[in-house]
Amino acid sequence: MKSLEEKIIKYGVVRDGNVLKVDSFLNHQMDISLFNEIGKEFHRLYKDENITKIVTIEASGIGVACIAAQYFNVPVVFAKKSKTSNLTGDVYQGRIYSFTHQCFTDIYIKKSYINEDDNILIIDDFLAMGGALDGLIQIVDEAGAKLAGAGIVIEKGFQGGGDLIRSKGVRVESLAIIESMNDGELVFRH
Amino acid sequence: MKSLEEKIIKYGVVRDGNVLKVDSFLNHQMDISLFNEIGKEFHRLYKDENITKIVTIEASGIGVACIAAQYFNVPVVFAKKSKTSNLTGDVYQGRIYSFTHQCFTDIYIKKSYINEDDNILIIDDFLAMGGALDGLIQIVDEAGAKLAGAGIVIEKGFQGGGDLIRSKGVRVESLAIIESMNDGELVFRH
Repeated sequence: MKSLEEKIIKYGVVRDGNVLKVDSFLNHQMDISLFNEIGKEFHRLYKDENITKIVTIEASGIGVACIAAQYFNVPVVFAKKSKTSNLTGDVYQGRIYSFTHQCFTDIYIKKSYINEDDNILIIDDFLAMGGALDGLIQIVDEAGAKLAGAGIVIEKGFQGGGDLIRSKGVRVESLAIIESMNDGELVFRH
Repeated sequence: MKSLEEKIIKYGVVRDGNVLKVDSFLNHQMDISLFNEIGKEFHRLYKDENITKIVTIEASGIGVACIAAQYFNVPVVFAKKSKTSNLTGDVYQGRIYSFTHQCFTDIYIKKSYINEDDNILIIDDFLAMGGALDGLIQIVDEAGAKLAGAGIVIEKGFQGGGDLIRSKGVRVESLAIIESMNDGELVFRH
């Protein structure tokens, strides 16, 4: 998506260790006009799939997922990263490995909110090693729901998580895929 | 807001200890059509205030804030509850007391994203004792920004947090205020 790539080039900041900071428009401050373009693009890609629900993970996936959901006219369910007092009753559980923090985190969705009649679109802001997406797919599978695919805003293609998940037959549509960012120069996959 | 009150009566679940569960439409599964009505209502209330930015707190405030932001045509900034590797540089810090978990949590917003030229609308899904709203107000004050007010989806009026903050001169608009929920019967303030 051209306007997204331009935004990443203009406002993204590359840091040591293959870190790309996009918190000025994506995951701390959020550019809602851009989110609307992103939502329309996810809808263009998945509009024939009869999506019944969008699933994402707290916190930074929620904004994009909610804006996109307007175009599909479906509810959003976000996976929670802790089993607080707000999360009671039966839950589906997925396990994600964070390569950034080098630890496992369990994520939860209440069983009432996904079932085998659902056709799920997973939406998230970032895909690098694929840990979060993999955890969400575990939950969709456990619920017996159909997975239409995933819509990702930015994929760090060179970290391989997206291609690994594609190789398992999952449709993964990323609106910007970064092929490399050596010496701070961003190269996109087209 | 009539349609919101009806939704709370129909789908809200009252639990022991003055707990109101609205996770089927507000803070786990999210009813985006309702969020649009909520966003329009916040805009109706604050449209003359020249809002420049909406501020909320992760995670469950983000969805409502993003949908509402479309009507104001402004960006959203969400406060983070931990200072992870994603949050670098100078930050404003607020401290919130959670009466549910009986502990303090520090929240952070990067200094670049609020400044003294901003006129802020704070949006959140819930207001009970007022801890989260108070922490966000601390950050707006620290940034030297103007605070137009707060837009809250559900206020538990009987817990006093909203009225305490109003008594300090802050405009707090809650779309549904629960006056009491004794024996599971919800009574709204009008």
